[in-house]
Amino acid sequence: MGPGPSDVPPSVLKAMGQSLVGHLDPSFVGMMEEIKAMLRQVFLTKNEMTFPISGTGSAGMEFCFANLIEPGDEVVIGVNGVFGTRMADVAARCGAEVVKVEAEWGRIIEPAQITEALNGRKPKVVAIVHAETSTGALTPLEEISKIVHDAGALLLVDSVTSLGGCPVRVDDWGIDAIYSGTQKCLSCPPGLAPVSLSDRAMKVIAHRASGVQSWYLDVNLLANYWGEGARVYHHTAPISMNYALHESLRLVLEEGMGNRWSRHEANHVRLRKGLAELGLGIASQEGHQLWQLNAVTVPEGVDEAGVRKSLLDDHGIEIGPGLGPLAGKVWRIGLMGYSSSEKNVDRVLAALKSLL
Amino acid sequence: MGPGPSDVPPSVLKAMGQSLVGHLDPSFVGMMEEIKAMLRQVFLTKNEMTFPISGTGSAGMEFCFANLIEPGDEVVIGVNGVFGTRMADVAARCGAEVVKVEAEWGRIIEPAQITEALNGRKPKVVAIVHAETSTGALTPLEEISKIVHDAGALLLVDSVTSLGGCPVRVDDWGIDAIYSGTQKCLSCPPGLAPVSLSDRAMKVIAHRASGVQSWYLDVNLLANYWGEGARVYHHTAPISMNYALHESLRLVLEEGMGNRWSRHEANHVRLRKGLAELGLGIASQEGHQLWQLNAVTVPEGVDEAGVRKSLLDDHGIEIGPGLGPLAGKVWRIGLMGYSSSEKNVDRVLAALKSLL
Repeated sequence: MGPGPSDVPPSVLKAMGQSLVGHLDPSFVGMMEEIKAMLRQVFLTKNEMTFPISGTGSAGMEFCFANLIEPGDEVVIGVNGVFGTRMADVAARCGAEVVKVEAEWGRIIEPAQITEALNGRKPKVVAIVHAETSTGALTPLEEISKIVHDAGALLLVDSVTSLGGCPVRVDDWGIDAIYSGTQKCLSCPPGLAPVSLSDRAMKVIAHRASGVQSWYLDVNLLANYWGEGARVYHHTAPISMNYALHESLRLVLEEGMGNRWSRHEANHVRLRKGLAELGLGIASQEGHQLWQLNAVTVPEGVDEAGVRKSLLDDHGIEIGPGLGPLAGKVWRIGLMGYSSSEKNVDRVLAALKSLL
Repeated sequence: MGPGPSDVPPSVLKAMGQSLVGHLDPSFVGMMEEIKAMLRQVFLTKNEMTFPISGTGSAGMEFCFANLIEPGDEVVIGVNGVFGTRMADVAARCGAEVVKVEAEWGRIIEPAQITEALNGRKPKVVAIVHAETSTGALTPLEEISKIVHDAGALLLVDSVTSLGGCPVRVDDWGIDAIYSGTQKCLSCPPGLAPVSLSDRAMKVIAHRASGVQSWYLDVNLLANYWGEGARVYHHTAPISMNYALHESLRLVLEEGMGNRWSRHEANHVRLRKGLAELGLGIASQEGHQLWQLNAVTVPEGVDEAGVRKSLLDDHGIEIGPGLGPLAGKVWRIGLMGYSSSEKNVDRVLAALKSLL
C-alpha cells in the first residue's frame, strides 16, 4: 500500500511465469498486437503509436523527451513534486531550454500559470505531471491542453500513477505524448512503460533536424519492431513482462474503465473518512486529491518513520514516506489497482489506530 | 534454440512469479546485495560497480557509452556483425567520433587491426563485441586488452551472448566496461542488462566535463540506489525480473562456472559432429566458433526460411535466421544456458535430418 508497486493479481503472476517463446515468434507478435489494442482502450486513444517501452516509467519519460526535443528547443514544465523536477532534468539532458512553472508541493499547476508562462514564448512542448505520486495532487488537464494548443505547442503528460485509477482521456484531452508505468493502477509488476504519441507528435518527430540521442528509445527504430510492418528486430523484448502486461490489461478491461475509476474513488472516500475519525487529514490540495495515492499529514510529535516500520514489521503493510519538502511530514498510502479494496482500507486504518 | 531468449529453468519462472515487495523494502535491498555479489562471481571481477540495468542488453550497451563518452571523444569500435554496427550507432548518438575497425561477418577482430587503428590515434575507448550473436564468432580479448591499455584507452566489451556460456574474465582481461543480457547463457527471461565498470572507468566518469545525456542510465544516479549507501530512490526497479535474475545466478554458481563452460563446449562439439554427418558446416571463422551460438551454412538449393518454419511448426524448435550479409545464408542454432543439452542437440539434428 505504498506509492507503487501495487499488489499484483494471481493471474498476472501466473501469466508472467509461463514458458517463453522468442521475441519474433508468430504467437508473440500476435500478443504484441493485442497489447497495443488494449493499451489504446486504456489510454482512450486511437493513436497508432501506442505500445510499451522496455523499461520502467522513467524510461517512458525519457522516451517522450528524447524523441520530441532537439538541442535548443524551449520546453515549459510544471514542477510541483518529484516527477516534475525529474522531467526538467531529463529535458535539460536532451538539450532543452527549460522554463519551470512551479507550485508548492501538494498543490496543482493552475491553468493561469501556464497562460502566464506562454506569454511571449513559443515553446515546442509543455509538460505536466497528471498525478504527482510524490504529493497526491491531480492536475486537471483539459483547460491546460487548450491553452497549450492555442500557443502551438505539444502537450506531454506523465500518467504513471493516474492511468487505470482515474480518468485519462488521451484523445478527448488532446494529449500529444504520454507515458505511464505498469506497477501502479494497472497492477502489473514494474518493468514496462506504456506510451502513446499523437499523429501531431509523430509529425514533429519526422521533421527533426538532428537524430534522436538515444538508440534504445528511438521511436523510429521501435516503430519497425512494434509497428504492423516487417517486425524488424530492434531489441529483445522482455517477453515475460509483456505476458504480465497482457493479462493485467485484460483484467482492467474486464472490470471496465468506469467501474475501475469508481472503485478507486469509493476506496479513497472510505479511507479519507476513516482517517478523519482518527484525526488525520490529507495534505494535498482540497478538491484535487488523488484517489489512488493519499498523502496523509503526520500529526505533531508522531514518529513518522517509526510508524512506517511498525506497519511493515508488525502488520505486513508497506506505506511510503514523504519526499523532498514533504519528507517527515506525510505518509503516502497507495490504493492502486488490485490494492484498492475495502479490505485494505480497513486494514491500514485499524493498524494506524493501534499505533497512534 | 534460437539466438536467445534461451529456455528458462522452472525454478527461475517460479521465482519470477512470487508476490512482490516494494523496491525499497529491506528484504529486496538484501536481495540486491546478493545479486551484486553473484554478478561479481559470474563476471569474475571485484568491481564495486556491478549491477543490472533495468532494460535489455541494448540498454546495457547504451549505459556503457552514455556514461563514458562525451561529445567529441574518439572511440574505436570493432565491427564484424550486427552488434558492432549497433555500438557504432549508439556511440555516435553520444557524440563520439567513431573509428570503425571492420572484419568480414563471421570473422573475428584481429589484434593487429586494433594496433593499426591505434597508430597515431589516442581514443578514449576501444569497444569490442566478445561473442557476435549475429555471426557466431568469438573474438579473443587478452591481446587486444594489452594493446588498448598500452595506448591509454579503456576497453569496453559486449558480453551479451558470452557471459555464462564461455570464459569472460573481467579483471584478468582488464575490461573497463562490460554489459550483458539475462536471456542468453544466464537463462533468465529478457529484461535486465548486467553491467560492470572498473575503478578506472569510474574515475574517467567522475572527471567528465559535461553531464550524462541519459537520466535513466546515469551511473551517478544509479549508484545511489544500487550502492551500499542510503538507497536513494531512482527508478522503480523491476522487482520480478530481479527475483528471476537472483535465482538464475544462483543456478549458474551452483553448477560452477567451469562446469558450465565445459557443458557448453561439449554440446557444441556434439552438434558440430552431428551437423558434419548431415554434410553441414559452421560458417564462422575456424578456431573462433562460439559454443553457444552456431551459424550453420545453408546448403545450396535449400529453402532457408522453409526449414525454419517446419522446425517451428512441426517440431516445436525455434532457430534463428542469418542477419545482414548472412541473411538467407545461415541458420543460427543457440545452445545457451539451460537450452545447452545433449537432448536438444539430438532433437535439432534429428529434425534437420528429416527435413533435408
